[in-house]
Amino acid sequence: MKVGIVDTTFARINMGKIAIDELRKICSLPYERYTVPGIKDLPVAAKKLIEERGCDIVIALGMPGPKPIDKQCAHEASLGLIMAQLMTNKHIIEVFVHEDEAKDEKELWMITENRVREHVRNAVDLLLNPKKLQKLAGTGQRQGFPDVGPLLR
Amino acid sequence: MKVGIVDTTFARINMGKIAIDELRKICSLPYERYTVPGIKDLPVAAKKLIEERGCDIVIALGMPGPKPIDKQCAHEASLGLIMAQLMTNKHIIEVFVHEDEAKDEKELWMITENRVREHVRNAVDLLLNPKKLQKLAGTGQRQGFPDVGPLLR
Amino acid sequence: MKVGIVDTTFARINMGKIAIDELRKICSLPYERYTVPGIKDLPVAAKKLIEERGCDIVIALGMPGPKPIDKQCAHEASLGLIMAQLMTNKHIIEVFVHEDEAKDEKELWMITENRVREHVRNAVDLLLNPKKLQKLAGTGQRQGFPDVGPLLR
Amino acid sequence: MKVGIVDTTFARINMGKIAIDELRKICSLPYERYTVPGIKDLPVAAKKLIEERGCDIVIALGMPGPKPIDKQCAHEASLGLIMAQLMTNKHIIEVFVHEDEAKDEKELWMITENRVREHVRNAVDLLLNPKKLQKLAGTGQRQGFPDVGPLLR
Amino acid sequence: MKVGIVDTTFARINMGKIAIDELRKICSLPYERYTVPGIKDLPVAAKKLIEERGCDIVIALGMPGPKPIDKQCAHEASLGLIMAQLMTNKHIIEVFVHEDEAKDEKELWMITENRVREHVRNAVDLLLNPKKLQKLAGTGQRQGFPDVGPLLR
Repeated sequence: MKVGIVDTTFARINMGKIAIDELRKICSLPYERYTVPGIKDLPVAAKKLIEERGCDIVIALGMPGPKPIDKQCAHEASLGLIMAQLMTNKHIIEVFVHEDEAKDEKELWMITENRVREHVRNAVDLLLNPKKLQKLAGTGQRQGFPDVGPLLR
Repeated sequence: MKVGIVDTTFARINMGKIAIDELRKICSLPYERYTVPGIKDLPVAAKKLIEERGCDIVIALGMPGPKPIDKQCAHEASLGLIMAQLMTNKHIIEVFVHEDEAKDEKELWMITENRVREHVRNAVDLLLNPKKLQKLAGTGQRQGFPDVGPLLR
Repeated sequence: MKVGIVDTTFARINMGKIAIDELRKICSLPYERYTVPGIKDLPVAAKKLIEERGCDIVIALGMPGPKPIDKQCAHEASLGLIMAQLMTNKHIIEVFVHEDEAKDEKELWMITENRVREHVRNAVDLLLNPKKLQKLAGTGQRQGFPDVGPLLR
Repeated sequence: MKVGIVDTTFARINMGKIAIDELRKICSLPYERYTVPGIKDLPVAAKKLIEERGCDIVIALGMPGPKPIDKQCAHEASLGLIMAQLMTNKHIIEVFVHEDEAKDEKELWMITENRVREHVRNAVDLLLNPKKLQKLAGTGQRQGFPDVGPLLR
Repeated sequence: MKVGIVDTTFARINMGKIAIDELRKICSLPYERYTVPGIKDLPVAAKKLIEERGCDIVIALGMPGPKPIDKQCAHEASLGLIMAQLMTNKHIIEVFVHEDEAKDEKELWMITENRVREHVRNAVDLLLNPKKLQKLAGTGQRQGFPDVGPLLR
């Protein structure tokens, strides 16, 4: 089994590097990395990692800017990533960090670090340990920020 | 015949558990459960349940958060769920409960319980008893809230 | 040749019944009726009517509610209906009546009756009498409300 | 080679007639005309003209109304037309005239006449004379209104 | 290996010419140019360059106008370009310059020149030198404006 990691030169943090660091910490799965210019280049890159380089799951990393056009690009990329999954029957875990999610650069780093690492663990669990995710069903997991937790009845 | 149930760790209520409980109450159909991180992971998971695990219908459970980005994710997931159905010729019943549909946590639990259970019954009827749905055509059925009923002429 | 009719339990008027009534008045084509819970279930149901039950055209009937989420569901369903047509090379005539199109329930009934009946006639013309539609090209036909007519030069 | 022309009964100007008139003026290509009720019926009709009636290019003519729902229908139709092109590898030239583009009916006629005729010429050039379009690359061509021209450096 | 270049007559700058100039400067790859009327014609043209003329990558050049309808066309075109990539497993680098990105015509020329040239280099790197992009991962690259650079930790 192999993990694909696709990231962008547009992002302001080396998200792929964080993903690889986390992946190495938690498992010995081989990986393929593929860097593209922007988030709208992610869908086909993820599909190529699956179909041409034998990846069983892909982690798609992007950092949309704060402008309306950036939001629209993220929306288009998300639809493409969903379509790529439906065409390949493989998961592509989208990890987008919006530049305006954080109040400053320090917080943006923190969100990015956490979100990338948590989703790398999610991806590995989807591949190797799906029961672990099932135990967390409905528990209000968040990536990048603290979990909100389950609703009390 | 087999029912697929796909839910998320993002949701704040264990929607899959409610669905399974209802399914067991009303029929003896076998089921497959699949838990993914978030709602945008639902479409491919539902398709995999159909194509790789032999499900004849899938119930896709999600709880979008209250922020605009959450609404957009729900929209993207919905489009993916529709596409997955068109690619498989199988129904995928979308059961989304938006966190901001309710005025408090208690009501959110109530809506979720009702909507999940009613849609599990819809899914089973689509599979086993389609004439029952036909009798309810145009009667203003709602899931989660009371039915609004048919319009008087 | 066979006509498919797909409607919902969500609608507040039995739109399928009106469609069948009109169909019987104007032709002797056989039909298949399929009732689903909501409008987002229409696209795959229409595709199944075409591919699994041999329908040559489908009339897809829905009544979106007045809330923004209802509008979004209608948008998603419409995209799915267009995609289903492209995948089958068959027409699926979308007949949506928005609950907030009318000022009261009486008018909503009137719009629904008219729109369903007129689109059933359109569907039959597409199948049996395409030249009739060609004669009406550019004449400002409306369904549910009076025609607006052609623009004077 | 054959040109497809698809138009609607919803439009308030007989756009198909204008297209055919222009086509006859500029070339001797045979054509197929297909009239559908509304713009959301255009995508599958265009695809059928290509796949079932042998058209090499299609001109898709529509006149969306002024209401928000009309704008949304146009958006959905446009996405369908793009998808139909990708599924067939043939161009479908979208010619939409929005009712609210003009200040009065006279101007709407003028815009419609011009836009339809100019796009018929574009379609014929795409088929027979692609180098002519290449010479116009980046020259600010508009259809329906005067060209805006290239930007001065 | 061959590069496709698709541009429009709608754009107000000859973007294809700039792309070809840059391509010739940096490599000796052969290219195919294809000019279409507007941005919504780009997706199928790009797909035809890949499937019918053997291009391994395509640069899709467009200049959306400043009106809301232009923005919507750009959105639709972008979705089509993503879909075309998924259907071909080839990159199509979208290079759109919005007319209202610049404060005057001079700046619009500058943005266009820079963005086209930088994306031509990106396209060539994707084909011939993917490791170069990987070295730039997460460095805040921008095309048309100065790079924003990586976030300091």
